[in-house]
Amino acid sequence: MSLTPTKDDKFSFGLWTIGYNGADPFGGPTRPALDVVHVVEKLAEIGAYGLTFHDDDLFAFGSTDAERQKQIDRLKGALADTGLIVPMATTNLFSAPVFKDGGLTSNDRGVRRYSLRKIMRNIDLAAELGAETYVAWGGREGAEYDSAKDIRMALERYKEAFNFLGQYVLDKGYNMRFAIEPKPNEPRGDILLPTVGHALAFINELDHPELVGLNPEVGHEQMAGLNFQAGIAQALWHEKLYHIDLNGQRGIKYDQDLVFGHGDLHNAFALVDLLENGGVAGGPAYTGPRHFDYKPSRTEDENGVWESAKANIRTYLLLKERAKAFRADAEVQEALKAAQVDQLVLPTLNEGETAADLVADRSAFEEFDTDAYFGGKGFNFVRLQQLATEHLMGARG
Amino acid sequence: MSLTPTKDDKFSFGLWTIGYNGADPFGGPTRPALDVVHVVEKLAEIGAYGLTFHDDDLFAFGSTDAERQKQIDRLKGALADTGLIVPMATTNLFSAPVFKDGGLTSNDRGVRRYSLRKIMRNIDLAAELGAETYVAWGGREGAEYDSAKDIRMALERYKEAFNFLGQYVLDKGYNMRFAIEPKPNEPRGDILLPTVGHALAFINELDHPELVGLNPEVGHEQMAGLNFQAGIAQALWHEKLYHIDLNGQRGIKYDQDLVFGHGDLHNAFALVDLLENGGVAGGPAYTGPRHFDYKPSRTEDENGVWESAKANIRTYLLLKERAKAFRADAEVQEALKAAQVDQLVLPTLNEGETAADLVADRSAFEEFDTDAYFGGKGFNFVRLQQLATEHLMGARG
Amino acid sequence: MSLTPTKDDKFSFGLWTIGYNGADPFGGPTRPALDVVHVVEKLAEIGAYGLTFHDDDLFAFGSTDAERQKQIDRLKGALADTGLIVPMATTNLFSAPVFKDGGLTSNDRGVRRYSLRKIMRNIDLAAELGAETYVAWGGREGAEYDSAKDIRMALERYKEAFNFLGQYVLDKGYNMRFAIEPKPNEPRGDILLPTVGHALAFINELDHPELVGLNPEVGHEQMAGLNFQAGIAQALWHEKLYHIDLNGQRGIKYDQDLVFGHGDLHNAFALVDLLENGGVAGGPAYTGPRHFDYKPSRTEDENGVWESAKANIRTYLLLKERAKAFRADAEVQEALKAAQVDQLVLPTLNEGETAADLVADRSAFEEFDTDAYFGGKGFNFVRLQQLATEHLMGARG
Amino acid sequence: MSLTPTKDDKFSFGLWTIGYNGADPFGGPTRPALDVVHVVEKLAEIGAYGLTFHDDDLFAFGSTDAERQKQIDRLKGALADTGLIVPMATTNLFSAPVFKDGGLTSNDRGVRRYSLRKIMRNIDLAAELGAETYVAWGGREGAEYDSAKDIRMALERYKEAFNFLGQYVLDKGYNMRFAIEPKPNEPRGDILLPTVGHALAFINELDHPELVGLNPEVGHEQMAGLNFQAGIAQALWHEKLYHIDLNGQRGIKYDQDLVFGHGDLHNAFALVDLLENGGVAGGPAYTGPRHFDYKPSRTEDENGVWESAKANIRTYLLLKERAKAFRADAEVQEALKAAQVDQLVLPTLNEGETAADLVADRSAFEEFDTDAYFGGKGFNFVRLQQLATEHLMGARG
Repeated sequence: MSLTPTKDDKFSFGLWTIGYNGADPFGGPTRPALDVVHVVEKLAEIGAYGLTFHDDDLFAFGSTDAERQKQIDRLKGALADTGLIVPMATTNLFSAPVFKDGGLTSNDRGVRRYSLRKIMRNIDLAAELGAETYVAWGGREGAEYDSAKDIRMALERYKEAFNFLGQYVLDKGYNMRFAIEPKPNEPRGDILLPTVGHALAFINELDHPELVGLNPEVGHEQMAGLNFQAGIAQALWHEKLYHIDLNGQRGIKYDQDLVFGHGDLHNAFALVDLLENGGVAGGPAYTGPRHFDYKPSRTEDENGVWESAKANIRTYLLLKERAKAFRADAEVQEALKAAQVDQLVLPTLNEGETAADLVADRSAFEEFDTDAYFGGKGFNFVRLQQLATEHLMGARG
Repeated sequence: MSLTPTKDDKFSFGLWTIGYNGADPFGGPTRPALDVVHVVEKLAEIGAYGLTFHDDDLFAFGSTDAERQKQIDRLKGALADTGLIVPMATTNLFSAPVFKDGGLTSNDRGVRRYSLRKIMRNIDLAAELGAETYVAWGGREGAEYDSAKDIRMALERYKEAFNFLGQYVLDKGYNMRFAIEPKPNEPRGDILLPTVGHALAFINELDHPELVGLNPEVGHEQMAGLNFQAGIAQALWHEKLYHIDLNGQRGIKYDQDLVFGHGDLHNAFALVDLLENGGVAGGPAYTGPRHFDYKPSRTEDENGVWESAKANIRTYLLLKERAKAFRADAEVQEALKAAQVDQLVLPTLNEGETAADLVADRSAFEEFDTDAYFGGKGFNFVRLQQLATEHLMGARG
Repeated sequence: MSLTPTKDDKFSFGLWTIGYNGADPFGGPTRPALDVVHVVEKLAEIGAYGLTFHDDDLFAFGSTDAERQKQIDRLKGALADTGLIVPMATTNLFSAPVFKDGGLTSNDRGVRRYSLRKIMRNIDLAAELGAETYVAWGGREGAEYDSAKDIRMALERYKEAFNFLGQYVLDKGYNMRFAIEPKPNEPRGDILLPTVGHALAFINELDHPELVGLNPEVGHEQMAGLNFQAGIAQALWHEKLYHIDLNGQRGIKYDQDLVFGHGDLHNAFALVDLLENGGVAGGPAYTGPRHFDYKPSRTEDENGVWESAKANIRTYLLLKERAKAFRADAEVQEALKAAQVDQLVLPTLNEGETAADLVADRSAFEEFDTDAYFGGKGFNFVRLQQLATEHLMGARG
Repeated sequence: MSLTPTKDDKFSFGLWTIGYNGADPFGGPTRPALDVVHVVEKLAEIGAYGLTFHDDDLFAFGSTDAERQKQIDRLKGALADTGLIVPMATTNLFSAPVFKDGGLTSNDRGVRRYSLRKIMRNIDLAAELGAETYVAWGGREGAEYDSAKDIRMALERYKEAFNFLGQYVLDKGYNMRFAIEPKPNEPRGDILLPTVGHALAFINELDHPELVGLNPEVGHEQMAGLNFQAGIAQALWHEKLYHIDLNGQRGIKYDQDLVFGHGDLHNAFALVDLLENGGVAGGPAYTGPRHFDYKPSRTEDENGVWESAKANIRTYLLLKERAKAFRADAEVQEALKAAQVDQLVLPTLNEGETAADLVADRSAFEEFDTDAYFGGKGFNFVRLQQLATEHLMGARG
């Protein structure tokens, strides 16, 4: 298998990722801004197929219409020159002071209305550029203090906004779906819809749930100590994995946005295995963009920016290779059987079996040998995990 | 307000809570088992209204029918003598070796079938005792290793089980609803449906979602660093708070099951305020049992068991008193207004306002003064939090 | 007891705390800078006794000597006018790009030398202003990647720096001690000397350990899930609590820098009880500045800045009042005895007892009744914790 | 390099590790006890060189002298038959009810005295068996509630105990050193000496600090979110790494005790690289036992026990192989230079350089080009991390 990316691999990067200037809570920028045309050219060079952006990444907050249009035109030119596409776009509702209590769920109604307009304007641009996914990260929707935000009312306003925006997209006839990006905290003490689960539940309350799915991010779930691969599997089960943000995080702490694979490597392996091989079900579980939402470390200069961009791609392709070999290994297949992983595909009940039927089956309960599970009937999970570890480490052929 | 509980307060305790013998991963029991009749009498004495139990709490796993019936009869007698009720019951699918890979989602189909039967039997008993809520904590449904469990298949089996059990309850005509209790980890490395959000999302996929709600536990959400009060608010927003487990947890670590209020006191205050006063909406947000699912510390003897049981009740009532005073304070009301907490009740859009209408309103965007939010238009949240802190500390009248 | 602060309370604030402009990883400033003279006047007004600062707080990095001196003179004038003092100062080795891999342990030797000079210059200023404590927070001393920093060599360079600076202070005859401020992570993935313990151990390797102690910060220890009060007790036991940073943190997540008491309120109560009442030993355990190192929330305007500053003071004084009442309560004294807290003061061995003597005492082992601890000899800890909770809540007189 | 272990690899296992019966807070045993003779034979078979044990692992708490001696004799026989040694032993001061508030720092003086005797007796046995390290894990030394334990007094008693035991070992002429094993929490809410750092600091207060070092455990530090490799490096810097406990942990949660390498694989790689290759200093940094303190998952039967034991060994040897290749790779050497990792070896000051000399060097400060670090002078850390990742994954030759 080749470690050279092609456009079919669908690797995309946010303009704010390679464009990150190094500012953090304890220091200012360590790198100058990168020009969007330069970014597009470099991304094409390293094998990406797409660029994504927030409105304010491309043209500064408060730009005049002319300044805005100029940047749009420059981006379009670069896309035309390189063949890169814009598979996704999103709105910045978190950087400017006006969003200090959030956008769509700010206690301030004027801010909420302003936010809707800002989103609508960038949805129009996204549609113009052909983006099929519109991401919504509500990073400032939340609170530090429990009495400062009425959560039920905030969810009500959030629902109102997604219903309105969904209708807008339908009315405009855009080929576009929304993808909510959950995060538990930072920059707010607690953020609304803190995990994949909370966002999935929320979507069910919308007028058009089919228009809204998820954009889960590796580090965001791991900041809550949750298993990212398991969360993605649940999102897939609900058919709601509309987009994905790949990066690295080393445990429960501030949002690190490391290169994909530079965090929890076991879980990254399991994730790629799921996306590419689909587990027991077989076949790719996800066919959308592999989007890297990371930050080149503040210690790096521009050379390090591109080294880190390439590292994301290379690690993904390596993990894909390892996962293919894992699934192809006869000993792994045998170990999966010994661990009865495949048995979970079988319905628990027989075809058409009723409660009365189950009660009538004495082998299911009265005669079921529960004692056999003491000192016996081991599940052989550790051996399977060791095989996964050795494949991950390239130690088995 | 009185700190003496009455049955109207609906305080209930699990038989496994005051019955906890002190065993933990590094040590055996430090207390003998408590007899169920004694437990019921003592609970009545300290002002509880209800007892809850797992099947195996009342009669040991593997009991004969006669042993089982004897314990049931003894419980019934004690309930009759004291007037206590059984508002909720649940199944133990986690202690015996047969459940070492879980119950309803074990890779082993025989275990899955056995689990359904064990639940059905205890549902029958729960119905007989008048329980209206049946809790499902799937503590062993999960895995330590990513390749050991196909999560999508596990969710499929979980759905199959809840559909089957829901139909069973409907067919039997029981007045009973299920309440799923989420937990992120422990005793498994990662547990299925790890948070309130994941469980809410799952319920939407069931044949009869109206039969299934949540039983969130303070410590379980806090083990993922999530804000419990915010999670409860979202559960209420979905109308899925069917039951609640109150206890205390000091941050992200093993499941501590401390007395309610002996963990995050600010969040406990906000929780009681939400349950009793309902936030901006006003009125109690929840009217079900106040169920304490805690463990008397292993350092205690039986005297400490009852001291800890009383501490749960007393802290709840104190917090309720503090929350009433908080809401009644004119300065707090004024501070809530200054923080615009009440403004979140207002729809963002005007009645019937369309996208075109919103675009036409230049005050919403083109003429909206975003600059005013720099150095001005503060949200006054810290002052509000300080007022909450002082009310919690009983420092304001 | 009065809730009005006096200078004897020794409340101090960092210039960077009330001066925080609201910038965070996802947004720029929401407030303009505050002038140092204004800050000093306001602090005097709300009852503080001291101001602390980093060099770059007072005069921007890269200031000319004239600009620097002008700001120093303005500060001196304000101090003279108000009677405020500068009990502590510190160096900013983390904001400018030159410190992107740290200061004293940067892989780049030139940066290390530059850092020493920057510290020396500000030590001279600190001495001139009468500061007796010089804080060292090595926030950028660390790494994101394990192979990027040789930790043993980094500790070697750190030691070299503290030895050099200690000698400098001795040679100059300054009445000044250093206080190291540990932090586990943020802005680096892992920071050198991540906890109170690691820093205490490090100090023992220095040429003049008596010159160096600690400046622990509430939130920093809590970011590692550690008990801050317990850490402070250990620092006191080593006689190394030279300074303290009070603030609030809600669990393991990004560094929140909330108002003191707006985080873990139980632990804040225990901390103030320790500092003011000294536990079993009795008497104040700490007599230095009560320094608030917090950030007024980004949602606030200047009014909120001063509300938050006052909230720190008020909460501390309230907790002090509660802790006095706790210790004075006869029932608490009795409960402490029942919990045998005072018994820990007694040496385990008798005066002069040898190993042979202990072996000869059959009551210590052969005849010691270990069975009595099953079902008996409870430690009554939960009751004590409930009494603490009720005192904290102002519910006992 | 061979993946077949030899005795020179010094792999050892605790009797309680492979002997773990599967009990956890929510379930009883899933496996019968293993006989010590069988354990020794199997360990020899899989290539271990040593067995370690707590007194109560070998003979149950409360055994008669005869029962105790019988087990000792059986162990000795097995050791003689297999050539296995006992490099380390330790005391169980946490399982029996008598230790419910700890052993050496229990509030109950009788318990403290009993604990000393229990340790002395097992030290004698350890010496008899040739153990050169005596581990002290104070898992129950701690508290759930801040007022229940006076931490300074607890440290005083801890010091008294270590001084007494140190003298005992000296008087007896045993060739034995103590190794303290830190842990932040579980089974207590907070444990005394919670991290490597706190224990290092404590040791400095002892009468014979040279007699006491550390036995850090991977999972224990990671339960506090700390970097284990960095902690080990600091322990080595203090020359206090007397023993090490290898296992796996997936983030901040309950103590998982997984197989080594089944947790944070990047940090495991960096750890083995440090132990075997010594970083910049070169040469092995540690030559003692590679001790696995893990638990075979509760899902496994005896076959899984031995699969998991072998997995520990195999992963260690694989990581050792990968780390050798990493250090031998010319591109890695070049990348380390580019990252200036080797520059940290250089003293910051010139030989004999004084403060005055440094001030006189205008290139160090006045003429130092801090601007060059903006947009330049990148540290190339990400590239180095990617090389480490690829070596870990076996992707570079």
